[in-house]
Amino acid sequence: MAHIALPEGLPGITGGFAFRPETAKPMRELADILLHQPGSLSGGERELIATYVSSKNDCYFCQTSHGAAAAAHLGGDAVVKQVTADFQRAPITPKLKALLAIAGKVQIDGKQVTPADIAEARSQGATDLEIHDTVLIAAAFCMYNRYVDGLGTWQPTDQTMYAEMGKQLAQRGYSAPPR
Amino acid sequence: MAHIALPEGLPGITGGFAFRPETAKPMRELADILLHQPGSLSGGERELIATYVSSKNDCYFCQTSHGAAAAAHLGGDAVVKQVTADFQRAPITPKLKALLAIAGKVQIDGKQVTPADIAEARSQGATDLEIHDTVLIAAAFCMYNRYVDGLGTWQPTDQTMYAEMGKQLAQRGYSAPPR
Repeated sequence: MAHIALPEGLPGITGGFAFRPETAKPMRELADILLHQPGSLSGGERELIATYVSSKNDCYFCQTSHGAAAAAHLGGDAVVKQVTADFQRAPITPKLKALLAIAGKVQIDGKQVTPADIAEARSQGATDLEIHDTVLIAAAFCMYNRYVDGLGTWQPTDQTMYAEMGKQLAQRGYSAPPR
Repeated sequence: MAHIALPEGLPGITGGFAFRPETAKPMRELADILLHQPGSLSGGERELIATYVSSKNDCYFCQTSHGAAAAAHLGGDAVVKQVTADFQRAPITPKLKALLAIAGKVQIDGKQVTPADIAEARSQGATDLEIHDTVLIAAAFCMYNRYVDGLGTWQPTDQTMYAEMGKQLAQRGYSAPPR
């Protein structure tokens, strides 16, 4: 049971969003810009960053739903599993590896990011906007993860539900509640 | 120097906001709802929660600017200093102490919040909405703090600048850039 009286039957963050639509609106907009609207990093790459950070924060709902969104973008969940297990050995670009290294440091503390981390990302072709958005995706998931867990939301374990949710998120984004 | 080419002369989060106005908009809106728009917790109480979490995350810009906003609401910075040093001994209500205890756990990991923490807050008169907003303020400052530090933003140490910024934030809120 959730810590407060959230509407029943709504999994994870959707329970908090339904409880407080005023705060849901900017939280949805931010996720939509960072993960769904057109950008030079693909939707799959951005969902991998979100999944990796959520995995480091041990948030079951977020890592499973965003992992499913990444899998929907990428056509399968093999790379998602490799990224959360050991991204340095995953079949992803050197640029995404450098960005995941930055995201992993932001998850602990923004002050852990060093000029050498940034130089490595740049040398692999990352732009300032890509570095900015990586820092902000990592920071934002430190919010979403804590919101989901801190309210004690319902986090079902039915994988078919997450697969369906992932498909919807990958297609429709985050600006409106899932249908 | 910031890690990426942020506009010069803009302190802390305002540098990131100017670099990426698209993400600044929902981030400002969320802060405005949580800290400034009318609520059953006073602006001073909510800024104290934001300051406490920013202090635990060791984010100089955020703890100093929101500490100044709290001081502007409360008519002085004595209580702000007591809250960041040891909130259990600060001259604040038992309800705010119970909410700060929840915020402190969310800052570490949302899963640390227990039914006993929630029961204590309720027994001190906290409503579900106040508990929700406390969880979200704590979660959101885990984002803002990491964004400010992860970009390596300029964080000046001039206390008169923060006092002026705190006054403006307390009066005008967060929906538009400071004048």
